[in-house]
Amino acid sequence: MSNYTAPIDDMRFVLNDLAGLSAVNQLPGLEDATEDIVDAVLEEAAKFAGEALAPLNHPGDVAGAAFKDNAVRPAEGFNEAYQAFAAGGWPALPFSPAVGGQGLPELVAAATNEIWQSANMAFALCPMLTEGCVVAIDTHGSDRLKEIYLPKLVTGEWAGTMNLTEPQAGSDLAAVKTRAVPNGDHYLLSGRKIFITWGDHDFTDNIIHLVLARLPGAPPGIKGISLFLVPKFLVNGDGSRGKRNDVYPLSIEHKLGIHGSPTCVMGYGDNGGAAGYLVGAEHDGIACMFTMMNHARLGVGIQGVSISERAYQQASSYAKEREQGKAAGKKGRAKIIDHADVRRMLMLMKSGCEAMRAVACVAAASLDYMHRTPDDGDKRAHAERFALLTPMVKAWCTELAQEITYSGVQVHGGMGYIEETGAAQHYRDARITTIYEGTTGIQAQDLIGRKIIRDDGKAMRELIGEIEGVVAALSAADANQKIIKQQLAGANKNLAQATDWLLQNYQDDANAPGSVAVNFLMLMGFVCGGWQMARAAIIANRKSNSANDGFYTNKIVTARFYAEHYLPRTGGYLSTITAGSESIMALDAEQF
Amino acid sequence: MSNYTAPIDDMRFVLNDLAGLSAVNQLPGLEDATEDIVDAVLEEAAKFAGEALAPLNHPGDVAGAAFKDNAVRPAEGFNEAYQAFAAGGWPALPFSPAVGGQGLPELVAAATNEIWQSANMAFALCPMLTEGCVVAIDTHGSDRLKEIYLPKLVTGEWAGTMNLTEPQAGSDLAAVKTRAVPNGDHYLLSGRKIFITWGDHDFTDNIIHLVLARLPGAPPGIKGISLFLVPKFLVNGDGSRGKRNDVYPLSIEHKLGIHGSPTCVMGYGDNGGAAGYLVGAEHDGIACMFTMMNHARLGVGIQGVSISERAYQQASSYAKEREQGKAAGKKGRAKIIDHADVRRMLMLMKSGCEAMRAVACVAAASLDYMHRTPDDGDKRAHAERFALLTPMVKAWCTELAQEITYSGVQVHGGMGYIEETGAAQHYRDARITTIYEGTTGIQAQDLIGRKIIRDDGKAMRELIGEIEGVVAALSAADANQKIIKQQLAGANKNLAQATDWLLQNYQDDANAPGSVAVNFLMLMGFVCGGWQMARAAIIANRKSNSANDGFYTNKIVTARFYAEHYLPRTGGYLSTITAGSESIMALDAEQF
Repeated sequence: MSNYTAPIDDMRFVLNDLAGLSAVNQLPGLEDATEDIVDAVLEEAAKFAGEALAPLNHPGDVAGAAFKDNAVRPAEGFNEAYQAFAAGGWPALPFSPAVGGQGLPELVAAATNEIWQSANMAFALCPMLTEGCVVAIDTHGSDRLKEIYLPKLVTGEWAGTMNLTEPQAGSDLAAVKTRAVPNGDHYLLSGRKIFITWGDHDFTDNIIHLVLARLPGAPPGIKGISLFLVPKFLVNGDGSRGKRNDVYPLSIEHKLGIHGSPTCVMGYGDNGGAAGYLVGAEHDGIACMFTMMNHARLGVGIQGVSISERAYQQASSYAKEREQGKAAGKKGRAKIIDHADVRRMLMLMKSGCEAMRAVACVAAASLDYMHRTPDDGDKRAHAERFALLTPMVKAWCTELAQEITYSGVQVHGGMGYIEETGAAQHYRDARITTIYEGTTGIQAQDLIGRKIIRDDGKAMRELIGEIEGVVAALSAADANQKIIKQQLAGANKNLAQATDWLLQNYQDDANAPGSVAVNFLMLMGFVCGGWQMARAAIIANRKSNSANDGFYTNKIVTARFYAEHYLPRTGGYLSTITAGSESIMALDAEQF
Repeated sequence: MSNYTAPIDDMRFVLNDLAGLSAVNQLPGLEDATEDIVDAVLEEAAKFAGEALAPLNHPGDVAGAAFKDNAVRPAEGFNEAYQAFAAGGWPALPFSPAVGGQGLPELVAAATNEIWQSANMAFALCPMLTEGCVVAIDTHGSDRLKEIYLPKLVTGEWAGTMNLTEPQAGSDLAAVKTRAVPNGDHYLLSGRKIFITWGDHDFTDNIIHLVLARLPGAPPGIKGISLFLVPKFLVNGDGSRGKRNDVYPLSIEHKLGIHGSPTCVMGYGDNGGAAGYLVGAEHDGIACMFTMMNHARLGVGIQGVSISERAYQQASSYAKEREQGKAAGKKGRAKIIDHADVRRMLMLMKSGCEAMRAVACVAAASLDYMHRTPDDGDKRAHAERFALLTPMVKAWCTELAQEITYSGVQVHGGMGYIEETGAAQHYRDARITTIYEGTTGIQAQDLIGRKIIRDDGKAMRELIGEIEGVVAALSAADANQKIIKQQLAGANKNLAQATDWLLQNYQDDANAPGSVAVNFLMLMGFVCGGWQMARAAIIANRKSNSANDGFYTNKIVTARFYAEHYLPRTGGYLSTITAGSESIMALDAEQF
């Protein structure tokens, strides 16, 4: 079992040099986020995560959450950790002081979230979902709902959940059946929800469920779904806790991973109806839910970074200790890190983590601009950019996390297959991230349909143009930059060609978007990773001097490795994209 | 939970049309393996696997093997299944009648092994390892050892194990410490072995361990290791079972997957010494072990095919039943198989399985020629070809199995993460296959060093030339074949360039072989898959007529899909290979 040490130097580099914290903290309301303050926040977060959360990660996996007497019993130590987490003020970090938050940028929250998810992903899902609830209520809730629920959710005194999925309705929310009928000042909900993460626990006095349901006479499909707030305990007029509401966890799932995180089947209204309150307008639940989901999608993308970083730390520390065989150019018994193939795997892990972190943080910075900039044009541009990047960050980071946690096991050899080692847990935990909050396929459809086809490729071409600017800025006179320049130029051209192909073909072939979507998203993800790694190399080259040489030359080497080992994949993706849908769709279903 | 139905039609096509059963069964000793006999064997194997082994796969995962009172207790039903398996004569299938075998080709054993491993990989590991023991004893053992041990191992009355690994010696056998001292007509062994698959069980009266150990005064390193046969129970002069030998399982591992297969720590000689018998010459243990390992490596490669096929069957059957959303061009609620992205994943799974099966069976046919052909030139050519293909079959099939079982989970969406569904078990079970019997990295070193550099690329260039012949045979006038022709020509050229690069660079850079080995192996694997899929398309095109249209057009579509979706990856691999070792090795170990 390895410890976890938050990679603060790398985070600082991304926040300050790549994501532009010094500009983000000029935005109205974010002025407190000076470099010094942010440094202190990261250091405190690292300390808390390393001491209080990371040590519970493996025991939580082994013990798992339990279910007894209609209630979830989290694994030992989780409750205490939650109380300390809330007491530390961590849940309030990214919210505005108006609702009791600390007013730090989403960019900083991206970094602290990475730390929580690395330290203990099963645990950190609970505050992550609460954060999504705060955003949805803050954006769409009535003043009364905000007044009652936001302050306690923001501080973590209460926790929140998202209730979308039903057995017959997985990715297809149009099929949601849970019903809500008006009943005085509220509604009574009845139905079943499945896959509800942290649907019950003993961390907080109350749990606030946001639930998709249908009103009587609602139109069919997704245009007839509304969003409701359903508290575990009703809240009295004076804000005190009232009687138990008719919502109960019915069971928890036996899963491949994140054993410490209870995944509940939730029963609404089995004893007469669960009291709920409408959030947003009637039948507008999908729009409200998307506010929450886009936030959660960025969060799950960051989980991809987190679990990769954790796996990388574990693998590199094992590789530096484990002796085996002889390595080229080394005397005596070698550490396995000296074997070129092990080194190659570690570099894939390391450069992948750095690229993902940079891309996710740059997206988070756009979220800050989108919320805070007073300039309308700027706001629109960043909203478009964030919308374009979100499905890619979610899906690409989590897909790459599969490969990186795979390598984490592989570096350990046979020991990686033994559960006590801990490498296998990261591999199992990571596996959910390409599924929940919308599968990779769903993210890719969103990217292709809503983010590229809908604006005829405008936002994507702006991104490609921006990357061309970085290609131009790379020096052909520097040996490392020359390689990065060649690879990134080629990869970016592949992305441009794929975009052209898509826009030329989607109208003639209804299956084309679905057939190419995931390969397109992955192509875009690797190019975006290359974009940020190239920027990192340019900046590192400028800042490098004899005093700090190790850190910055490390960045340049890692960027070159990324260009040499990840960017060549983009040619393969382009080729599969331009092959279109014919061979994919040619067989009858019965021929499978 | 899905059933398993052996893909007999596909297997028949591979055996008869791609691997040339009608020529293999002309080899001396294999004359009984007529097409009719082989058909009957496959059908019986399919029936037994579907009825007796597959239903135990999930319960075996849930219950796992247990350890109590210094003995392994396999999961419920496994013992009965083993007795039925042995009574059916299945263990004896590929061995010569001289030792009690049925004299069927390795090619046919490849197909039946695929069936066993698909049905229940945890179970099937036991006979697979016994098979390796038979091969090693038959090839290297004294007449006396053969007489005593072979007949009962061949029939499965006794089982066998392989004991290589020690805690300090994983992939590095040079570090083996277990000692053997002469003691009359035998040796006394003492030491610890770990990761011993099916190291103990109650299936058989006796278990025959093959064990690597050092004699007193043996040279250091791998040249001082000898191979010993250590029975669980000694065997009396009359062949009856004698007293318990001093070898015991000490514990079993808690693993990510194959829970039904006990992985033992074995203690030799804790009570005075375990009696063992030398197999082969003193200090020649590594060569003897390689006989067994090459056999087992083909077997593990086949496990890659098997677990992929099982995952594919489960995913395709789920995708045909599960309703979700709307699909392009379909009215009403769609089955998810009608969504292009799900279809794409299923085609990746299906075409991957078919390509791997074909490559593994073609390798197995070479093994038959190598053992049986009376023509020396032919024997040498097939021995070279088998040596070249073995590490690739082992590593490429098992690496691709990771991706395919990943997709198997993904097709299920959230249900894939729930253990009761069964998709996650295949994903967990598959994970060991790139590790045991030599990791992917070890296979790749073997390929690069012993199989390519050692003969200056001769065997590899012959293979590339043979593939060029297939490219030439593809018709540019046929729309599907034209695409396959273009893609395979490009991919084969990439393989040729990678080979040239390797041979030009390995002497100047000691880290080059290790740096490029895995990417080289994967490039070769995808090209070899394309080679066999192209052959399949040509044959299917020739045989297709209105009566059998479905089967053969399916083959052509699948081959085209493979060419469009897998072969473009080869360009990426070539690019990473020609990048060499510089960025891989540039950092100091401390910078990780």
